[in-house]
Amino acid sequence: MDRKVNLAEKLASFDGAFAPKIVAYLNDYKVYVGKVEGEFVWHKHDDTDELFLVLKGRLTLQFRDRDVLLDEGELFVVPRGVEHCPRSDDETHVLVIEPRDTVNTGELENALTKADEEI
Amino acid sequence: MDRKVNLAEKLASFDGAFAPKIVAYLNDYKVYVGKVEGEFVWHKHDDTDELFLVLKGRLTLQFRDRDVLLDEGELFVVPRGVEHCPRSDDETHVLVIEPRDTVNTGELENALTKADEEI
Repeated sequence: MDRKVNLAEKLASFDGAFAPKIVAYLNDYKVYVGKVEGEFVWHKHDDTDELFLVLKGRLTLQFRDRDVLLDEGELFVVPRGVEHCPRSDDETHVLVIEPRDTVNTGELENALTKADEEI
Repeated sequence: MDRKVNLAEKLASFDGAFAPKIVAYLNDYKVYVGKVEGEFVWHKHDDTDELFLVLKGRLTLQFRDRDVLLDEGELFVVPRGVEHCPRSDDETHVLVIEPRDTVNTGELENALTKADEEI
């Protein structure tokens, strides 16, 4: 995947929330884009931090003790082991970076669990 | 550094090209913002890939066999071991992600080599 990635073009190429699409790799990390609309699921990643960067819209990262609101151009690193639940009232576009073997729903396996897909 | 990061605010808080400022950590990776104006220096990182995302302006990633032009919202991962030289005619803002122990000038040590600085 040694090529330039236009994030807006990638995001325009698919529909559907909570369906992460890998656009690049950085060593043993995956870089993916995704759409958030509605509420995801409470989960955590015991072995890794997770970086969120909002590309469009507004993301609420819900934690058990607070909410963090992220607008376009804002990033947040969710520390490992911390329960979180992304949510957005309107379609929001995010860039996420985490190790390749990270499962999107963390310790859970349910209908929202998605296998890695490159675009 | 468990806090929200507004990238534009961070970039407005300092002057000077080729002076990377760390804004977050993701596991053993550093996330930094920087300004590119003029030409950096040819170098490579033998042990790691390096992710560039253009936040504002236009970045030229020069390689020995081609140039890659990146506009706002475009990213590129420079593979490990590949010589490159960032350049921009006008002030350009970038987000870069690489392991914490990566030296900005790669295998070189010169006037452009910068110690890590958090903002």
